[in-house]
Amino acid sequence: MTKRFQVVGIGNAMVDVLAASTDEFLAENGIEKGIMQLTDMARGVELYARVGPAKEVSGGSCANSIAGIAHLGGRTAYVGKVKDDQLGAIFAHDLRAQGAVYETALAPRDHPAETGRCIVLVTPDGERSMNTYLGVTEFLTPADIDEAMMSEAEWIFLEGYRFDGPDSHQAFAKAIAACKAGGGRVSITLSDPFCIGRHRAAFAAMLKDHVDLLFANRAEILSMYETDDFDAALEQAALEIEIVVCTDGAEGAHILSGGRRWHVPGVPTKVVDATGAGDLFAGAFLWGLVEGFDLETCGRMGCIGGSEVISHVGARVEADLKGLFRAAGLI
Amino acid sequence: MTKRFQVVGIGNAMVDVLAASTDEFLAENGIEKGIMQLTDMARGVELYARVGPAKEVSGGSCANSIAGIAHLGGRTAYVGKVKDDQLGAIFAHDLRAQGAVYETALAPRDHPAETGRCIVLVTPDGERSMNTYLGVTEFLTPADIDEAMMSEAEWIFLEGYRFDGPDSHQAFAKAIAACKAGGGRVSITLSDPFCIGRHRAAFAAMLKDHVDLLFANRAEILSMYETDDFDAALEQAALEIEIVVCTDGAEGAHILSGGRRWHVPGVPTKVVDATGAGDLFAGAFLWGLVEGFDLETCGRMGCIGGSEVISHVGARVEADLKGLFRAAGLI
Repeated sequence: MTKRFQVVGIGNAMVDVLAASTDEFLAENGIEKGIMQLTDMARGVELYARVGPAKEVSGGSCANSIAGIAHLGGRTAYVGKVKDDQLGAIFAHDLRAQGAVYETALAPRDHPAETGRCIVLVTPDGERSMNTYLGVTEFLTPADIDEAMMSEAEWIFLEGYRFDGPDSHQAFAKAIAACKAGGGRVSITLSDPFCIGRHRAAFAAMLKDHVDLLFANRAEILSMYETDDFDAALEQAALEIEIVVCTDGAEGAHILSGGRRWHVPGVPTKVVDATGAGDLFAGAFLWGLVEGFDLETCGRMGCIGGSEVISHVGARVEADLKGLFRAAGLI
Repeated sequence: MTKRFQVVGIGNAMVDVLAASTDEFLAENGIEKGIMQLTDMARGVELYARVGPAKEVSGGSCANSIAGIAHLGGRTAYVGKVKDDQLGAIFAHDLRAQGAVYETALAPRDHPAETGRCIVLVTPDGERSMNTYLGVTEFLTPADIDEAMMSEAEWIFLEGYRFDGPDSHQAFAKAIAACKAGGGRVSITLSDPFCIGRHRAAFAAMLKDHVDLLFANRAEILSMYETDDFDAALEQAALEIEIVVCTDGAEGAHILSGGRRWHVPGVPTKVVDATGAGDLFAGAFLWGLVEGFDLETCGRMGCIGGSEVISHVGARVEADLKGLFRAAGLI
């Protein structure tokens, strides 16, 4: 029987505030380049006052992936919390306008926090340094998880960043149980090496006990398995997870499954804004998977998705991804 | 004595909601291509629900010009109303981060309207069709005009769109009186042919009695002087206004002053998003003027400003305009 959803994602709902910046600005403001740092509202406000003119674009790592799947025509839904405010309305609009189902209850207007936002500082090399004020998205609870929706998913896709939310572990547990009870499978992205450091035991238990498909990049998988040996980390992951997919920047991606391993070369692009590269890789890969393509083809689709999104400002896909897949002979 | 401000602008403070669209969508939704249409909140909400994923970028015609002057290092301020809400904060941030002074009193949180926004539908040809919900910016009143600020301006720059606000005529009158009393001069942009039609007598009186420098495009000046003869319209304007500057799309701009006339050729560009072309033309022209460049050079600067802003999404300048002026041998 066809399930209602091919992929249901759970993540931090964020609006990105994208501003051009410099290495000097990052240094002066104590911002580590290329990673995500959590800020409180006060630090977010202070930092925003210092950055130049910006553009606001819906973001959120998992939401970017889900938007990509919706763009490709996949049946997909997203779970993540915004407030009943202007930025929340923007986030909801952009996801629904792309064709994803998005029904998570809004945090009410009297909630003390606002819709989450991420100040993304883009340096001339295209690298992005993210400063995240989680806002209401921190407060996703098990009550926000609709078990019926999870049971109707072929795959759920969990965002590692959500481990920073106080009730996220229970929310994930509820989603996983409902999904698996319905015969669905579980994918996750590690999201960030420092987030792994903050929640190492929870990540380890999750990978070992529940995850069927892992997305990571080089820094994340090294952090997860506490090693400097990339191949060792990949192989260790493959021992406990059925499908391991690890991106490696311009080098493309490695896929390990069933004792086999594939390397998919990167798709060369001029990097304008690296925001969302991993997100669109995962979105395109997942779409390929649920549409029945082999893992290597899924990897090629992922690399095309990632390269499209870094060629412009913002972490949502703009070009016609199916057209790009067609041009590459993948569909 | 050096005045505090070279240019003080007064206009509608808006956040642009930029979405890719098609000619079919415009037709289906009764949107006339290439112009600005006013909507109420309900129509704005309805239309927003129908458009695809969008990007939010600060806009407002005059604010775009002022941001351009600030980008060039000019001493400049902006007057236009936003609410104490998230979009208002974005608008204020982007202007101040560019270096402009922006002190207009915020509409309070309990104001029934919100910060104004403009749904800009960009068709594949780069043309933009604007659907404006004025929100609180409609309610700029004489009380929002700081006479001291106006008297400290070498030039004030008035946005024609503001004629749609109920108290704008008195607000403009107050600003003009204070500016002229301080020895300053008055520039205006006609903004839109249909806005002229809605307020023809007020525009005519303003041009005749107060305006020293007029910005218009072809459609606007033809509408203003109710003729199909472009040269006749230009010459009629030049009879009553000291400096007349009229853009003509890719053809560049015509400048008439003191019985002389110049034509400045357009700067060829691939049009990605035409939003803001006239605004940045005016901003760059005004900067040249207050910096003492001759009118023809000001016109060349204007054409470079306009061509920069249509080469990317959004109506605020992104490239280094002074660098472009230098490359063109203008500075």
